[in-house]
This record gives sequence, structure tokens and C-alpha cells, in this order.
Amino acid sequence: MEVSERLLQQLNFLTEIDELKQIMRQTVLLKDFRQENDAEHSWHLAMMVILLSGYSNDNEIDVLRTVKMVLIHDIVEIDAGDTFCYDVHDCEQKVAKEKEAANRIFGMLPKEQADKFRLLWEEFERRETPEARFAAAVDRLQPLLLNYNTRGRAWRKHGVKRSQVIERNMHIEKGSVELWDFAKQLIDESVRKGYLLDG
Amino acid sequence: MEVSERLLQQLNFLTEIDELKQIMRQTVLLKDFRQENDAEHSWHLAMMVILLSGYSNDNEIDVLRTVKMVLIHDIVEIDAGDTFCYDVHDCEQKVAKEKEAANRIFGMLPKEQADKFRLLWEEFERRETPEARFAAAVDRLQPLLLNYNTRGRAWRKHGVKRSQVIERNMHIEKGSVELWDFAKQLIDESVRKGYLLDG
Repeated sequence: MEVSERLLQQLNFLTEIDELKQIMRQTVLLKDFRQENDAEHSWHLAMMVILLSGYSNDNEIDVLRTVKMVLIHDIVEIDAGDTFCYDVHDCEQKVAKEKEAANRIFGMLPKEQADKFRLLWEEFERRETPEARFAAAVDRLQPLLLNYNTRGRAWRKHGVKRSQVIERNMHIEKGSVELWDFAKQLIDESVRKGYLLDG
Repeated sequence: MEVSERLLQQLNFLTEIDELKQIMRQTVLLKDFRQENDAEHSWHLAMMVILLSGYSNDNEIDVLRTVKMVLIHDIVEIDAGDTFCYDVHDCEQKVAKEKEAANRIFGMLPKEQADKFRLLWEEFERRETPEARFAAAVDRLQPLLLNYNTRGRAWRKHGVKRSQVIERNMHIEKGSVELWDFAKQLIDESVRKGYLLDG
């Protein structure tokens, strides 16, 4: 029996994205402070979506679409790398690189699946739909949790200040007022405990 | 504003399961041959479910339920550890350990979410529903892909034979005849190329 062209394309894509496990983020894990990678991060976000979707500002979000979004949102970093986004210049450059990456990597899939992933990724990036706003909220809340629970390890390393954390994370509120209330408390407590610079 | 007890339980659980990123499997990654961890593996399976659900033997599986299943299926290993399941004795012991782990870890969640995860995990373990059979199929196919693409690294390390791989993986067929056909070809080719012992 011959393997179909369609299945081969899908398996090639699934083999290609093994690389996401090698793309390191700035955030560190709770136990041994090694850097987190994008695949682990994406798994963690999916767990957050499943457990916390009830806190979305919008009454009923489509959980499957939101889970898919967080599972694929960083795949472009296989080509474009992870950018520590407290650096504005780097953040501008990354947009172009990520679009090219989306073309190449999602383009490995059968056309209708490639198109769906491309649209989902763009939806995530634009943060306009309820699902994208909630996905973006957990994408910001997760590193806050890890930073707080490692006594601000990544923040201290990069000399990050409260105002930067507020500015970068305040869009959590657009996905969930309740999660943003919690995030603000975490940020305040981080400053009080010396995990994060004031100012 | 006070954080609700419910949200605190959920966030404590989400912090606890960070540990899944530290539970190492026998399978190694394609690029640098480091061992894969359970969180990465779970992410990879979720991607497989999303892309390959059309190959399920059952006409329409519930993709969200199947994705949830693969995302949580290894969480019990935080307490019970990963067992290299070509060892029968270890496999028997692990059942009891995993049940205790499910009680403790899922039990951190608000009751109705704890119950749902517990049921989902048991459903996965029993492999009786179409969703559980498909989840179990990708859970077996993924390490086959990694083993084949690393020239049988984990197989060679443990002296694994074709008959063991066939026996351990043949239930892929119950989830998807098409994926099992592919898996058999991969196994045959692995023997032919010397990645896997014959016999």
C-alpha cells in the first residue's frame, strides 16, 4: 500500500515542527531555572485556555479554535527566532521575518490545512476576535506566572521595570478583566518583594 | 479586589504542572538527540490530532475532547515518572502509581474540572471510545516518527526488536487503519536500514 501524498505532507510538517522544542524563550522553568522552549510554552497555554476560558470577557469563546491558536502561535519562530519583546527595535523586525516563516512552514501542509493555520495565526496576531484576545491574554499571563514564581529571574536578568511589564501585558484586560486584575496584583507583589524594578 | 478561591486553585494547578516539562522520555529529538519531555510530547500529539483526525477509523471524532486527552494524558507522570514500556514488570507497577497521581494532581482543581480531567484520563487509558483510540494511536505514532528520523536512537540504546515494536504499537490500527499501514512501512524500513533489530 502506498502512503498518500497528503499524509506525507502532513508527516513532513509534523517532523519539521519538532524544531519548536529547540526554540528557547527568556522565561525560565520553576524547578531548575532552565529556559523554557516554545513547544512546552504552547502546551502550557493550551492547558490555560482549557481551564480558564470561563474568565473570557466574551460570554462563549470557541475553545477548540483558541486552543489551536495557542498551539500554533509560535511555530513561525522556528525560522524567525524568539524575540525578547521589551526591545522595540527587535519587535519591528520580527513581523516581516515571521510572515516569511508562516509561508514556508504552514505551506508544507495540504493547501486547505495550510490556509487554515495561516488564517488562525493571523487572527492571533491581530487580537481582534474574542478567541484571539483570550489567547493573547494567556500568552502574557503564563510568563508572568513563571517570572513571579522564580522570584523575577528573567526580569532581573534583563533589568525590566514595572512600567514595561504593565505596558506589555495590559492587553490581558481585553481578553479577561478578571485575569488582568490578578496579573496586576502579581506585578505589585513582584515589585514589593524585589523581583521587579519599580518605575 | 480579591482573587477568587476558584482562580487560585486553577493557577496552583497550572503552576504545579510546569513540572511536566521536566519529565523525560526515552525518545530523543531530531536535532540534537536530547531526550524529549512530556510537555513537548503532549504538544506534538495535539498537533497530530488536529492535522490527522480525518484518518480516524470512526467517521467523526470530537477533536476538542481528543486534544484535551492528549494534552493531559501524561500529567500523572509528574508523580509516577515515565516508564519505558518495553519492560512488562515496570508497566504493571505503574498503573497503581498513576491512579494515586491522578487523585493528587487533578484533585488540585475545582471539583467539576477535576472530575472532568479524571474521566478524560481514564477514558484515554481504557482506549474504548473512538476519541481514546485515536489519541492512543497518535501517542504511539509520534515516538515511531522520532525513532525512525533519528536512525532508531532509542531503539538501539535499549536493544529493542521489531516484534516488540509491533506488539506495543499495533493498537494504532484500532484508531486508524491508514496510520497503522504507514507505521508498518516505517517499521519495515527501520529494520531494513538497521535502525531496529529484526526478530
